[in-house]
Amino acid sequence: MKLPQGFKAAGIKAGLKPSGKLDLGLIYSDLPLAWAFMGTTNQLKAACVSRNRSRFSSGDPVHGIVVNAGNANCANGDQGIWDNEDFASLAVNALSLPRVQSMLTASTGVVGRKLDMEKLKTAVPQLVKELELDTDHFAEAVVTTDTCTKQVTKTLRGGARIVGVCKGSGMIHPNMATMLAFVMTDAIVSQEKLREIWPDIVNHSFNQVTVDGDTSPNDMAFVFSSRQARVLEEDFIQGLTEVAQELAQKIARDGEGATKLLTVNVSGARNDEEARKAAREVVRSPLVKSAVHGNDPNWGRILVAVGYSGAVSDMANLKIDLQTRTVYHGKPQDFDAAEISQSLKVNDAVIDIDLAAGTAAATAWGCDLSAEYVHINADYTT
Amino acid sequence: MKLPQGFKAAGIKAGLKPSGKLDLGLIYSDLPLAWAFMGTTNQLKAACVSRNRSRFSSGDPVHGIVVNAGNANCANGDQGIWDNEDFASLAVNALSLPRVQSMLTASTGVVGRKLDMEKLKTAVPQLVKELELDTDHFAEAVVTTDTCTKQVTKTLRGGARIVGVCKGSGMIHPNMATMLAFVMTDAIVSQEKLREIWPDIVNHSFNQVTVDGDTSPNDMAFVFSSRQARVLEEDFIQGLTEVAQELAQKIARDGEGATKLLTVNVSGARNDEEARKAAREVVRSPLVKSAVHGNDPNWGRILVAVGYSGAVSDMANLKIDLQTRTVYHGKPQDFDAAEISQSLKVNDAVIDIDLAAGTAAATAWGCDLSAEYVHINADYTT
Repeated sequence: MKLPQGFKAAGIKAGLKPSGKLDLGLIYSDLPLAWAFMGTTNQLKAACVSRNRSRFSSGDPVHGIVVNAGNANCANGDQGIWDNEDFASLAVNALSLPRVQSMLTASTGVVGRKLDMEKLKTAVPQLVKELELDTDHFAEAVVTTDTCTKQVTKTLRGGARIVGVCKGSGMIHPNMATMLAFVMTDAIVSQEKLREIWPDIVNHSFNQVTVDGDTSPNDMAFVFSSRQARVLEEDFIQGLTEVAQELAQKIARDGEGATKLLTVNVSGARNDEEARKAAREVVRSPLVKSAVHGNDPNWGRILVAVGYSGAVSDMANLKIDLQTRTVYHGKPQDFDAAEISQSLKVNDAVIDIDLAAGTAAATAWGCDLSAEYVHINADYTT
Repeated sequence: MKLPQGFKAAGIKAGLKPSGKLDLGLIYSDLPLAWAFMGTTNQLKAACVSRNRSRFSSGDPVHGIVVNAGNANCANGDQGIWDNEDFASLAVNALSLPRVQSMLTASTGVVGRKLDMEKLKTAVPQLVKELELDTDHFAEAVVTTDTCTKQVTKTLRGGARIVGVCKGSGMIHPNMATMLAFVMTDAIVSQEKLREIWPDIVNHSFNQVTVDGDTSPNDMAFVFSSRQARVLEEDFIQGLTEVAQELAQKIARDGEGATKLLTVNVSGARNDEEARKAAREVVRSPLVKSAVHGNDPNWGRILVAVGYSGAVSDMANLKIDLQTRTVYHGKPQDFDAAEISQSLKVNDAVIDIDLAAGTAAATAWGCDLSAEYVHINADYTT
């Protein structure tokens, strides 16, 4: 996809993926970029996550980010920290930038194996030569177990643009299929505003995706702005939210073994946190996921998951709709099970839940649980 | 199994299970029993859970508990509450007891369907006639999707006895396969002491079992004492803990689709709560469960689950043993992957994790995740 003004990107083969596919990517801007960042909450953190967090704390703008797939450079001790720093240096030197701090890093792939710095020494200068005005090669270079690349583009009123690229489909050995998201925009927005709005947007998009409930130590979501095109703040926030949510849906739909995107909309919650939590717990439940896979209108499992989510509900008025048909409303409803089962035989399953306890609403995205998920994750033996 | 002194039990067919198997059970004592109880934390609670909680608050002793399988009498509104009260009344009348409050109730099975009171009116008086000094029929009557009955017996120094019966193997539609545990002892122990020690024992046994992370609205664990045999308090606490933990292991081993019992021992935690949480998160992770199923020595998934558990660890000294072989100790260790994989091809997989952050330890039990789990839970269509 065509990049917003001021951005270049590249993707090439460095030889880190055994498959021989593209595995090294770069996002770059000649002028400094405003940026914001949300990283994994896992106590185990890859070297790149810790370094980006430190860069974020400094408040300094950056010129871009260099990304490798095929090796997570995680749980590698001090060696991993040095290699990560060298990775940034290689990019900075090839770009003739004065400060190594102006380049961020991201790694995804195998945990616990040393990064092949010899390959990167040869590949990174080549990568810089391949910079282009398009994200397609970059999007290919950052995927691991994904079955497709994931890109979204949006043009706002006045012409400002937002382009998002992400990867992720669960965590699968030998790859830790980290969620990485890179959103680029040329909308004029201050670094302060970007950092103010990004956590809330991430909490309502990427942090509402559940494939298997496992949180990778490499998860990161970035937004970068080259600040060149005027935009109304409300348009920008809405556009950025939509891009992030569409990327999140792409991750969920590409979940390991998934045959369906499962969308859970919760309304009537006491507050935003409870709405998000209830939606996440329903979309995470292996029993709900299995029922959706089997086209089974099993509202009991949904009700149970709401119950243990910790979100307060008015049980006497709680309402559950499956594919827009009401199956529970304070008590079981009469419904045509065969008809709902038939309506579930599509690629999109939607559960609407009204907690009847307030006015907050939120959505979570996930996928069904298939026997294929187990095959993918069990039938590999080291 | 032979009951402790003072107890009788029974199990008969009331016709609630479509299979026609035993589905109505009773535990009874002529003399009042000291008792303690832990119920589900799910906000959705079956009528029997709410009623037992209220009985528990009163502090009064009881004469026993009447149990049905095949119908959870849950999410049935006011009708469910009345039917549950009538269920207790039927038993109390048949036993000629003066107070309905002296009989507890438990239900497990389908959610959202009315209890068949006509069948119970005929069956409960019959049930009372079948009271015997053995738990075998009772144990059969309380199971739902379990593939076997689950009983444990232990004799303490001095002759006091403990007999435990439980059921549970996951939550499966149309049955909500609730975890129910009934532990009976004739050890002399005060009601106060029993209530003081039971929560801690449950937290280190039944609450450390994870099959799929779903919490049933009917879960309950009871202990009853007829107070007839002298015992040292420390012997009693140890024996009760062992019985509860052995029952918990039986539930995990009988997890839906399980081929292995997975035991996760965590040591070196800062406190008991963090030790229990870390063990639970590792045993819950679908990725760890899939790896165990596939005999894959994938320590990365274990490390990641520890990381997101929230338990504090010293990452530089954290140690992971798989089947007693060290695979990670601050950094990846050299190990013979084929040899460990071979050692995993048994019915018991054990993961030992030293967080290196303190002295607290705890264990959690679960099972591997097989394609069979998905088949059980998805391939049923209403």
